[in-house]
Amino acid sequence: MRVEVINTGTELLLGNVLNTHLQFLAEALFPLGLRIARQVTVPDGEVICEALAEAAARAEIVLITGGLGPTTDDLTREIVSAWLGLELVHDREIMDAIEARFARRAMRISPRNQRQAQRPREAVVLWNHHGTAPGLYFPPMEKSGREKSPHIFLLPGPPRELKPMFTDSVLPILAKVLPPRPAFALSTFRIAGLGESGVEELVGEPLLALGLEVGYCARPGEVDLRLIGGAGELARAEAIVVEKLGANLVTRDGRELEKVVVDLLTARGETLAVAESCTGGLIAHRVTNVPGASAVFMQGFVTYANDAKTRALAVPAALIREHGAVSAEVAAAMAEGARAAAGTDHALATTGIAGPGGGSAAKPVGTVFIALATKLGSTTVERHRYQHERKTFKNLTAQTALDLLRRRLA
Amino acid sequence: MRVEVINTGTELLLGNVLNTHLQFLAEALFPLGLRIARQVTVPDGEVICEALAEAAARAEIVLITGGLGPTTDDLTREIVSAWLGLELVHDREIMDAIEARFARRAMRISPRNQRQAQRPREAVVLWNHHGTAPGLYFPPMEKSGREKSPHIFLLPGPPRELKPMFTDSVLPILAKVLPPRPAFALSTFRIAGLGESGVEELVGEPLLALGLEVGYCARPGEVDLRLIGGAGELARAEAIVVEKLGANLVTRDGRELEKVVVDLLTARGETLAVAESCTGGLIAHRVTNVPGASAVFMQGFVTYANDAKTRALAVPAALIREHGAVSAEVAAAMAEGARAAAGTDHALATTGIAGPGGGSAAKPVGTVFIALATKLGSTTVERHRYQHERKTFKNLTAQTALDLLRRRLA
Repeated sequence: MRVEVINTGTELLLGNVLNTHLQFLAEALFPLGLRIARQVTVPDGEVICEALAEAAARAEIVLITGGLGPTTDDLTREIVSAWLGLELVHDREIMDAIEARFARRAMRISPRNQRQAQRPREAVVLWNHHGTAPGLYFPPMEKSGREKSPHIFLLPGPPRELKPMFTDSVLPILAKVLPPRPAFALSTFRIAGLGESGVEELVGEPLLALGLEVGYCARPGEVDLRLIGGAGELARAEAIVVEKLGANLVTRDGRELEKVVVDLLTARGETLAVAESCTGGLIAHRVTNVPGASAVFMQGFVTYANDAKTRALAVPAALIREHGAVSAEVAAAMAEGARAAAGTDHALATTGIAGPGGGSAAKPVGTVFIALATKLGSTTVERHRYQHERKTFKNLTAQTALDLLRRRLA
Repeated sequence: MRVEVINTGTELLLGNVLNTHLQFLAEALFPLGLRIARQVTVPDGEVICEALAEAAARAEIVLITGGLGPTTDDLTREIVSAWLGLELVHDREIMDAIEARFARRAMRISPRNQRQAQRPREAVVLWNHHGTAPGLYFPPMEKSGREKSPHIFLLPGPPRELKPMFTDSVLPILAKVLPPRPAFALSTFRIAGLGESGVEELVGEPLLALGLEVGYCARPGEVDLRLIGGAGELARAEAIVVEKLGANLVTRDGRELEKVVVDLLTARGETLAVAESCTGGLIAHRVTNVPGASAVFMQGFVTYANDAKTRALAVPAALIREHGAVSAEVAAAMAEGARAAAGTDHALATTGIAGPGGGSAAKPVGTVFIALATKLGSTTVERHRYQHERKTFKNLTAQTALDLLRRRLA
């Protein structure tokens, strides 16, 4: 069954509010075997009717978000009912729920809220436990000589109201109306150390030959490979991906790189410290975004000043003078110093020239050294050059550092 | 002129990637007096053509994002050219730029990248300084008997490539093709310490009374107030905003909070250190995102473990035992210890319970203490509670800490 989503709301088109509905709805529908074929954002007002007519001509399920509030620009309820030729009536039960909600909050009800208790008799009420606007479900119905209308769901705009309503009320209705379907599934592989075209070169043809749908999504320092197809084909695809991509394969389950690193450390009962110059705290920030990181992440040193490198990490001032703060020697000394100071099994260090200033002929802007010291002995240092603006430079350096540790632990 | 946006990408409709383009484009177009009338997301493939035909029938400007990469699912270039009846030719200059990019990175170019150097002679190249895929601009042209085609822009999918290309290449083209329009200007005020409704309560009515268009945009810990109108009205509005919002007003020029803090420190010739427990490096990361931060930011301590707090910041172990690591006493000792260890004028410290685990009745999940130690003597400690998931908790805490310092320095 084809699903389309209509997001209504002038604030979305003005950029005041980021639309997160599409992502939520897509992820919630996927386990039912449903995919969103098209999504459109239209402003509040009559154009909703046009978007509905277009979607209804193509889709069996139409989800409409927004425009159920009490103010004059909230017209979705009226427009959809009119399009289906249905009459709105006052629903005492909805009004009771709204009044009870206001009473619980000791808030004064506005006459405008009366509008939210209007609904056609033919629509099913989707109760809203997190706001005043109930949702509505319109089952397919004959529409003056045309084909049957699609399943239409009206959902509130605020995500904290829409999400529980969708999970609690919409998914059960969809599960009932869906026809039995052939099994198909989604696999997502996260890859580091290769670009999008590098990944496609290695696995693109054999995966397409399996009849799978293949998609790529590149971000700084990583690529997601997405496969859709039958379970048997996906199992064969996984074997191909694992063989061809080797250590470049970060996860088969969509976990983020920092989560993989924390999981690997946790499984090994090992600990980590980081010493960051050019990444300025980003590696520590990413690692501590992972719930449970405190079990393995002991300490971070953001040693921007040379003094700080000497004081906190015992990097000899003479070493900095001789080789420069951005050098393989200093990177190694930072990693070893952090490991010793924090008493951890592993330590990562970064030192580089993020720019825009600070480059030289021998070490141009974008040059970075990444070191990994471990309890196993020798310290690894990598030299890279990332010619990007400051934030992407930091992202790529943090990504490469975390991936260096992942490869060591895997 | 009517603008429509077509976002292409199966990953958007599967929910793997959150679509942030609409918000960025809306905000970037706004100062030109342009608003997005409709936005649609379609999967990779031939349906792009259908969406283009629909948009072209309604709009004078069509922005298409995504599908310019080197892989087989990237078809936007081909589809739009075919729709306009234009022939693709190999562009030596684009290929040179792609090859130079790969050479700079010492990466091997793939034969697939050849596709990215294809373009119709009639299209203007929008150079991409942050990726391989150039954008393309198709000026209006006759299309076999129909009306003229709209201005069509093809832009790359990754935000870090799209944003600079839009600012550097698309906005100047739009500025040239737009008809002259009445002079009006945009003012953006960044506000901390008040919610959206708090800001509206203070300044909403007097600003509307000036006949200005007033917009609000709330993010964790800050609100942007956007005013559009004539220069005279905006000057009067600024006086109202400055008076009513007082110290809550962070900037009148859109600078980010961390940039304001770095600028204030630079102007005063003062230095900063940070000691982070629950923010895990985020404050250091934000500060070091600002070019030139190295002049004022000396050192960061990410002291996740209690041991690290004692070792790196000289927080007495007895103090942690007595009051707990999440306490006003420990926060103050962390800030004072960081200031002493790094030898800076100011030091910020955070310690809190990000969750999901670790809360208690006296200190529930979300409790956080933020301390500021300065050379001026007494150390300030604030207690807050942020009941949000981990990342938003970290964002709010970092935001409040930086704002505490800003108010002290301003």
